[in-house]
Amino acid sequence: MLKLSEQVRATPVVEWNGGEPRSLQDEVAVEEPIEIRVGGTAVSVTMRTPGDDFELAAGFLFTERILSGPDDIASIVYGDGPDKRPSANVVNVTLRAGKTVDLARLTRHFYAASSCGVCGKASICAVRVHGIRRPAEDLRIGPTLLAGLPAVLRDRQTAFDRTGGLHAAALLDESGALLDVREDVGRHNAVDKVIGRALLDGRLPLSQQILFVSGRGAFEIVQKALVAGLPVVASVSAPSSLAVELAREYGLTLIGFIRGQRFVVYSGHERLAHASVVV
Amino acid sequence: MLKLSEQVRATPVVEWNGGEPRSLQDEVAVEEPIEIRVGGTAVSVTMRTPGDDFELAAGFLFTERILSGPDDIASIVYGDGPDKRPSANVVNVTLRAGKTVDLARLTRHFYAASSCGVCGKASICAVRVHGIRRPAEDLRIGPTLLAGLPAVLRDRQTAFDRTGGLHAAALLDESGALLDVREDVGRHNAVDKVIGRALLDGRLPLSQQILFVSGRGAFEIVQKALVAGLPVVASVSAPSSLAVELAREYGLTLIGFIRGQRFVVYSGHERLAHASVVV
Repeated sequence: MLKLSEQVRATPVVEWNGGEPRSLQDEVAVEEPIEIRVGGTAVSVTMRTPGDDFELAAGFLFTERILSGPDDIASIVYGDGPDKRPSANVVNVTLRAGKTVDLARLTRHFYAASSCGVCGKASICAVRVHGIRRPAEDLRIGPTLLAGLPAVLRDRQTAFDRTGGLHAAALLDESGALLDVREDVGRHNAVDKVIGRALLDGRLPLSQQILFVSGRGAFEIVQKALVAGLPVVASVSAPSSLAVELAREYGLTLIGFIRGQRFVVYSGHERLAHASVVV
Repeated sequence: MLKLSEQVRATPVVEWNGGEPRSLQDEVAVEEPIEIRVGGTAVSVTMRTPGDDFELAAGFLFTERILSGPDDIASIVYGDGPDKRPSANVVNVTLRAGKTVDLARLTRHFYAASSCGVCGKASICAVRVHGIRRPAEDLRIGPTLLAGLPAVLRDRQTAFDRTGGLHAAALLDESGALLDVREDVGRHNAVDKVIGRALLDGRLPLSQQILFVSGRGAFEIVQKALVAGLPVVASVSAPSSLAVELAREYGLTLIGFIRGQRFVVYSGHERLAHASVVV
């Protein structure tokens, strides 16, 4: 699943450590731009770590609500770069016959000029995708499972251990078993990759799974989780105000600061087994 | 400089810590979208922490090479939101009379359809701005100064200490004195804000200063530094492959993993005082 040759690159560096500097070989996370095209039209360029590019494209287009399911995809192939030769940094998604999409929405993402009917809050309607729903409510998770998430991820986050420069996103089931993990220099990309893989496998919605991310729980991570039907987002770090607001509005369980036995529940406390406090 | 009321918001949470859950008040970093307009035309929506929005707009437009200097700006004001009332999440930059810009470039950012003459590497020409130059070569910095950067930043990073959810970008002079610091949920935004403030003050290029960032040293951070004339970028974390490549190509000193007395020099080792090793 992880192809280290693509994700990590050796490079000469100089290390200082209190005394004389010394030359050595170090490893850095690979970062390269990828252009995602739909039917030959470029819709996004993002900085990413190569690998799982088809998953990234599928997950990005799905969580931006351009695709509504795997059946919308006729094919995903690498495209030609500016030199007219096949490029590992261009991915072209061909839609099934008859599928029409509003590609301009991806590059638009601006406040509506006059009235915005999507949400009451003008401040966030520019970044909000349409048609997200409340995730399933029946999943229950225990505090021991949550506290153990960082250790589960650490065991599998190979490239991160070598470079310290990658974010990870993982899917786990209700028993805490790791189902999938992806690493990327971009937090959003790692999430798009796990969701994209699940989409291509026909495993959506992920209504009985947990999304665990190594970075912060930002608004767009929570939104992507909601689009995929995930009921729980957990992270070792802090969520933002807007992530908390969105999670509460849709009843998603948002957990942060998992460190040792401690963690903080920002929203959706009712999914915690034996929960006796309401947020 | 830091307005905590805008950057941090109190919220009720449930904390688990091995025993029974307890309800308490926590603080989260504020994240809201901002729409940046040029002459009334929306050119970007980004998730940011409110505060220093004019600096953010100026720094973003400058490091994307839409603005070439402070004289290009006639005014910066808050604009109207979708409800036609002034919004704290819309900033409009009016250019001086006679200034023409290629706004489409900001939303384009795609591979050129046929030939790309900017750089030899097709893979990165999609994300590269035009006309960046080598920074000045005369700055010398000592290892003690570099090792002390995290402590200098920690003393000033107030909102981060309270939420754990903000990135910081700081400018320091060659003696290690802190000149400016900005915090934001987005790493790029924190950098745009310090550079934007310097632009508005007429202090560019920053040829004798150090940019210190709390997050990773990614490609776009190095590129923004180069546009502002900064010769040194330092971080507590890992750089990416493309950040290292860009830094080496332009002779920028790129430093990562500052922890205790240890740090790693990825590029531009000649700016380290008493340097006896060449990268």
